[in-house]
Amino acid sequence: MTLPAEDALVAQFSSAFKTRRRDVLVGIGDDAAVIRTPDRTVLATDALVEGTDFHRDWGARRLGKKAISINVSDLAAMGAVSSHALITLGLPPDLSADWLDSFILGCHQAAQEYGIAIAGGDLSASPSVFASVAILGRLMAKDPLLRSGARPGDSIYVSGTLGAAAGGLHLLLQGYRIEDSGGLRLPGGKRSRTRNSESLARLIRHQLDPRPKPALASLLAEERLASAAIDVSDGLARDLHRLCRASGTGALIDQAALPTDSALVEIAPANRPPVQDLALFGGEDYGLLFTVPRRKADRVTALAPRFALRRIGVIEEGGGVRIVTAKGAEPLPDRGFDHFAPEAPPASLPRARA
Amino acid sequence: MTLPAEDALVAQFSSAFKTRRRDVLVGIGDDAAVIRTPDRTVLATDALVEGTDFHRDWGARRLGKKAISINVSDLAAMGAVSSHALITLGLPPDLSADWLDSFILGCHQAAQEYGIAIAGGDLSASPSVFASVAILGRLMAKDPLLRSGARPGDSIYVSGTLGAAAGGLHLLLQGYRIEDSGGLRLPGGKRSRTRNSESLARLIRHQLDPRPKPALASLLAEERLASAAIDVSDGLARDLHRLCRASGTGALIDQAALPTDSALVEIAPANRPPVQDLALFGGEDYGLLFTVPRRKADRVTALAPRFALRRIGVIEEGGGVRIVTAKGAEPLPDRGFDHFAPEAPPASLPRARA
Repeated sequence: MTLPAEDALVAQFSSAFKTRRRDVLVGIGDDAAVIRTPDRTVLATDALVEGTDFHRDWGARRLGKKAISINVSDLAAMGAVSSHALITLGLPPDLSADWLDSFILGCHQAAQEYGIAIAGGDLSASPSVFASVAILGRLMAKDPLLRSGARPGDSIYVSGTLGAAAGGLHLLLQGYRIEDSGGLRLPGGKRSRTRNSESLARLIRHQLDPRPKPALASLLAEERLASAAIDVSDGLARDLHRLCRASGTGALIDQAALPTDSALVEIAPANRPPVQDLALFGGEDYGLLFTVPRRKADRVTALAPRFALRRIGVIEEGGGVRIVTAKGAEPLPDRGFDHFAPEAPPASLPRARA
Repeated sequence: MTLPAEDALVAQFSSAFKTRRRDVLVGIGDDAAVIRTPDRTVLATDALVEGTDFHRDWGARRLGKKAISINVSDLAAMGAVSSHALITLGLPPDLSADWLDSFILGCHQAAQEYGIAIAGGDLSASPSVFASVAILGRLMAKDPLLRSGARPGDSIYVSGTLGAAAGGLHLLLQGYRIEDSGGLRLPGGKRSRTRNSESLARLIRHQLDPRPKPALASLLAEERLASAAIDVSDGLARDLHRLCRASGTGALIDQAALPTDSALVEIAPANRPPVQDLALFGGEDYGLLFTVPRRKADRVTALAPRFALRRIGVIEEGGGVRIVTAKGAEPLPDRGFDHFAPEAPPASLPRARA
């Protein structure tokens, strides 16, 4: 048993997650936390589960950051800025204290980066590691950015690149690792010295340390530029299908316009999933997928360089999503990325947000 | 693979957790929920983990209720009433759809009972079942009921009986089960027809379906009767130690005054942990442990019959907790109930609330 005892763990939590936010009236250490809240509060929860979302040796610090940032991403997709979080950790008896220290450090770093107070949590023995985070935040405009507001004729935009996180997952499952300093290690443990090392390390960083875009989301919400928004957590195809179902519309996107991550071609072609599949069906990019009414398109175009925005298609009448390829327009299936099964999440129970 | 696919699960969640609370502005189905909040919000999180807190065959419906009610208990111990919850479920591929249905039904029943809206959640594949709930609520008075307000001379009260949940755990680990209808089954599966069946079934119900006391907590908070409070989740001894540490005081309790559950003597003496140990160190009773200044003692005495309150001791100067037994006053160790190891939570990592 390598973990410190209960009281030591709670004390470690309290001290690691000291906050300077003045709206935390009672923080870690009592039966519950008390915080000041605005008249409307946005809340979400998202978990990382060992064996489904990660393996323990992928790097505890980055996983700790990710446990927070995937929740920040959900709130950003509502046009909300995160303020407070609760962290529940499942900890196996054989987990090393170093791993836990690094994980907590990562949570703390992400909380600092996004200005979030960790207001409380729960620690429990568990057969495998899990981190379940609940997050609270405030809307940056009167109305939330829902999935359901897209209308025919709206342009479809995505921020950042597509497929990098899935490419990183592919590399991790092959045995590639990144050091805490950022260096790439080949399967087997040797440090990589090839020309493409930095590109491959970047793909893995995209998987382990996604960077949601609360600033972009706030701006879209405040200036009412977007009619609908969702974060790309389960892949462009699946998340666009969700947005269309919620809005009661269809969509037509252009394969040539997709901002496929440039580093994906660096993955050895022999065992590489097709780059287009990674971009369309690969999850966890955590960019923002949003729609813009025609009369506001110019203002979004002006923001494009600053936030790496790409117009990828248009909302249509009717249902379903189609994609224009060299062969013409064809239906885009509503599926996530299950190429890595059985190591990856079971195909029939992918990440589901209730 | 017996679980329905992702979309079906989310739809099931949405429909199972439909709420009539008007302060849910956006519920299940978008990236996050939006709720109306008072100017101060109380929040907590607590998880149930398979193998640590339960085994799957203990009864899914009652476990679903428990996942909610243990969180209601945390908020009650702050003098707060629960209003909204998020549920994150880890679901193994081999989990039966019936089990999940019953678990969700139990969550729904508890939510109905306490007037809580399930505002969102997350579903993830996982090697073992876990349910991590985050709960929000509002204070029933200007100030929260903290652990830290006890002062020397305050009386110590506890609500309900002690040890029943630990007795129920003992029976469950021996193979006793209760049917959904409430009947007792002996280890091996036969229905019990002995005279003590109802007593044993009641102990198991205490373990699987604890009933927190938000009405008592609200009243104590509203009328400012309690100086400090904590819920008895980890056993009287450990939770009283916590209250004393937070308050910077000691405590003296009277063994003869403890409301030890009367059904505990029905457990076969041959392999029964000492009844006093169950009452002192057995967790999960989820009664309220609170302290009352001398000048308010009469008002609490008047409430005693209605809420099954028992005065068990007094807060003292200095640190440490002592118990008066037939042998005189002796130190009460700061430990939880670890007699069931290794089946029960590992002794060195019991339930820890951060």
